[in-house]
Amino acid sequence: MPGIEKLPIEETLEDSPQTRSLLGVFEEDTAAISNYCSQLYQAMQRIYDAQNELSAATHLTSRLLKEYDKQRFPLGGDDEVMSSTLQQFAKVIDELSSCHAVLSTQLADAMMFPISQFKERDLKEILTLKEVFQISSDDHDVAINRYSRLSKRRDNDKARAEAVEDVYTARKKQHQTMMHYFCSLNTLQYKKKTALLEPLLGYMQAQLILEKIRYWVSASNI
Amino acid sequence: MPGIEKLPIEETLEDSPQTRSLLGVFEEDTAAISNYCSQLYQAMQRIYDAQNELSAATHLTSRLLKEYDKQRFPLGGDDEVMSSTLQQFAKVIDELSSCHAVLSTQLADAMMFPISQFKERDLKEILTLKEVFQISSDDHDVAINRYSRLSKRRDNDKARAEAVEDVYTARKKQHQTMMHYFCSLNTLQYKKKTALLEPLLGYMQAQLILEKIRYWVSASNI
Repeated sequence: MPGIEKLPIEETLEDSPQTRSLLGVFEEDTAAISNYCSQLYQAMQRIYDAQNELSAATHLTSRLLKEYDKQRFPLGGDDEVMSSTLQQFAKVIDELSSCHAVLSTQLADAMMFPISQFKERDLKEILTLKEVFQISSDDHDVAINRYSRLSKRRDNDKARAEAVEDVYTARKKQHQTMMHYFCSLNTLQYKKKTALLEPLLGYMQAQLILEKIRYWVSASNI
Repeated sequence: MPGIEKLPIEETLEDSPQTRSLLGVFEEDTAAISNYCSQLYQAMQRIYDAQNELSAATHLTSRLLKEYDKQRFPLGGDDEVMSSTLQQFAKVIDELSSCHAVLSTQLADAMMFPISQFKERDLKEILTLKEVFQISSDDHDVAINRYSRLSKRRDNDKARAEAVEDVYTARKKQHQTMMHYFCSLNTLQYKKKTALLEPLLGYMQAQLILEKIRYWVSASNI
């Protein structure tokens, strides 16, 4: 298993072109992960929604069968064989609907929760940090520009001191946000495998639990 | 098991108020069956659609996992452990998606087909016959009315002969459509139980087949 690559946080103060180029690679990788995870998230959301709908539709069918006795059929409404047969169907379909409901809950907890968290929390955090870092970089460029214009025109000491102060603040801010951003990008490299595997394990686990319940239900019906 | 009630076809020629009143009861029963079957049809259609969607979404998830290797991840793209793990997940999820597809096909053939046939063919036929019978009854009333007006005004023989001919044709037509309509209403009383039980049996059968396939798949994966 190859080692996990890291952005060097100690290089953020120098902010060399090499560091920027490495940052570019990490950003590209993050974008690729983000894109792949979004596709997987959508597919899993479809599975989850379909499972929910299946659970609801099965429950509705069972409820309709239970309500057969309450229907006003002017002819043959007192057919007890038909009525009890439909009640038995209703019972078994109700059990299947419970199985589907358990599977839905399992999928929500073990599949949708981890992948949503990764998408909504980890990936969004990186996007926010990227923006913050961009803003502080721009601010830093503005401060540097103002300072260089000052030095050419040889203005008064107060303005020069202010400009120096601005550059200092802007660079400090940029350094901080860059460290923060690098840190998040590095963490993502650690998290990305778990982020893919956890919801898949959750899906499998849900299927196995369903298998056990169905086995138990069919055994109790024999 | 109580006997199945019948509309007396031999009474259609006389068309007495008692026969009409009995027809009303049969029509009410048919409307109740039609309403109940439509609800059941909708619930089953929802199950079938959800099952199809589940099958498609599971297949999509499996396809996405298979495509993991083709993704361009600039970092850690050569991680063979991750890659082969995802391929194994893809394989199992693909098998589950095949199970879902088999279940979909089973539901289409054994559940949706019989209930659709009953709804679209048998119940629609009765609605059509009801309309045809209504039209021929109205025509008969018109012919009778014209004849009675003629007899009062004591018109010429040719008009009277025509009116008698009209009444004869209209009554013949009404008698035929009424027999046809009664026949369909009687048949529905025989069909209604099968119409409810057949799709339910189809649903159960599909679940059992799924059970067997899943057992076989999980056994072959151990």
